[in-house]
Amino acid sequence: MGDFRNKESDIENDIVFGVRAVIEAVKAGKEINKIMIQRGMQKELFKELKEELANKKYNLQFVPIQKLNRLTRKNHQGVIAFIAPISYQDIEVITANIFEAGETPNFLILDRITDVRNFGAIARTAECTGIDAIIIIDKGGVLVTSDAIKTSAGALMRIPVCKVKDLSATVHFFKSSGLQVVACTEKTDNLIQDTDLSLPTAIIMGSEEDGISAELLSESTHKVKIPMEGKIASLNVAVAAGIVMYEGLRQRLG
Amino acid sequence: MGDFRNKESDIENDIVFGVRAVIEAVKAGKEINKIMIQRGMQKELFKELKEELANKKYNLQFVPIQKLNRLTRKNHQGVIAFIAPISYQDIEVITANIFEAGETPNFLILDRITDVRNFGAIARTAECTGIDAIIIIDKGGVLVTSDAIKTSAGALMRIPVCKVKDLSATVHFFKSSGLQVVACTEKTDNLIQDTDLSLPTAIIMGSEEDGISAELLSESTHKVKIPMEGKIASLNVAVAAGIVMYEGLRQRLG
Repeated sequence: MGDFRNKESDIENDIVFGVRAVIEAVKAGKEINKIMIQRGMQKELFKELKEELANKKYNLQFVPIQKLNRLTRKNHQGVIAFIAPISYQDIEVITANIFEAGETPNFLILDRITDVRNFGAIARTAECTGIDAIIIIDKGGVLVTSDAIKTSAGALMRIPVCKVKDLSATVHFFKSSGLQVVACTEKTDNLIQDTDLSLPTAIIMGSEEDGISAELLSESTHKVKIPMEGKIASLNVAVAAGIVMYEGLRQRLG
Repeated sequence: MGDFRNKESDIENDIVFGVRAVIEAVKAGKEINKIMIQRGMQKELFKELKEELANKKYNLQFVPIQKLNRLTRKNHQGVIAFIAPISYQDIEVITANIFEAGETPNFLILDRITDVRNFGAIARTAECTGIDAIIIIDKGGVLVTSDAIKTSAGALMRIPVCKVKDLSATVHFFKSSGLQVVACTEKTDNLIQDTDLSLPTAIIMGSEEDGISAELLSESTHKVKIPMEGKIASLNVAVAAGIVMYEGLRQRLG
């Protein structure tokens, strides 16, 4: 039960609820992971919030009131905002800074990783293997929460995380910036150790359920796989990501 | 809550309770992870069980009745046996078989890994990287349970697991059999990629809390570390084990 209670209290740390409080969080420019709004919320109450959210790029979710009630017992008035405990960063700015410093960029793209423990372990490895930034998607995957920071042993406070609307657009940006985009997948015969990862590189790791999306896979410049023996031939995604990031560092160290 | 309920039902799969049932499990030669016995259990009831357990090497734990009550609501009569869903194997027999087949042994020793998810992910990687057997300790670390098998994606049904009383004795046996015993630790300057892991090898990975015990560390033939950048300089143990096992496979593939 310990873990479950911790998760509850971490959610408490990450949420702001009530129409007024959420409007103030938006006005104050707080980093917001997503905003949950009660379906069929009373129009008068919603009006001011709606005006405040207009033309802003928040991830809005319209949910049954029961879902909000499960998140807090307090008076949420039909709206809960999930505050990110870090500031997400801009991948284009980071890329430009790395090139200007004459360094070689190494990025990690997470395509819909959903398990917070996997995300934490991946971030921890990324910080330890010299990855410059992690790119995540703003819907359908994990976001940076207090719980994620805890499972990352604090790594998510140190390594830049970029939350984007469209991973394809990011892959396109990387390719036009001269990076190779390396998809880690079983659907290839190329082994990671035979691929030059010392070049400017963005690695893509796919979701626990179905790997990398077909779209991203087709947009990558390289497909690589981890060598395998045995019959299971499938690794935990945090382990697989760790192996690929280690292989990159090993090659860069020469 | 999903995870928690699953864990409950997995425990139900793994236990046998009641004096008669436990005696029958012992008589039938079932693989038993441990037996919990109520402190101050009624002497008459305990007598037959005690006779049955005499001179057998079970891991016995004497616990308050409340602990037993939490494991099952049914009438446990003060005794619960935890049945292993696999048969543990004998490391000396496995080692002899590998040498007789003219192959190079690759073992993984887990020194008090306590988290079942880490154990599952490690077993999965071990099966995928050609490890011949995993050696665990019978007290103070994870054992093979239904839950562990699930988190290993079934790998624990395929890869031999050896449960030993004394890891030092196993290390001694490995050394006398001509294996190098490679401790993965931060307390060295030797990098894993500079160590020849294609030789007959047993790798030691230490617990999540305090790494490898001082005793095992001093008995190892090699100390190696994973190259690190960044400030955190500490990996999740399943990721670290994955990297070391991958490095071994990479070297063996040449």
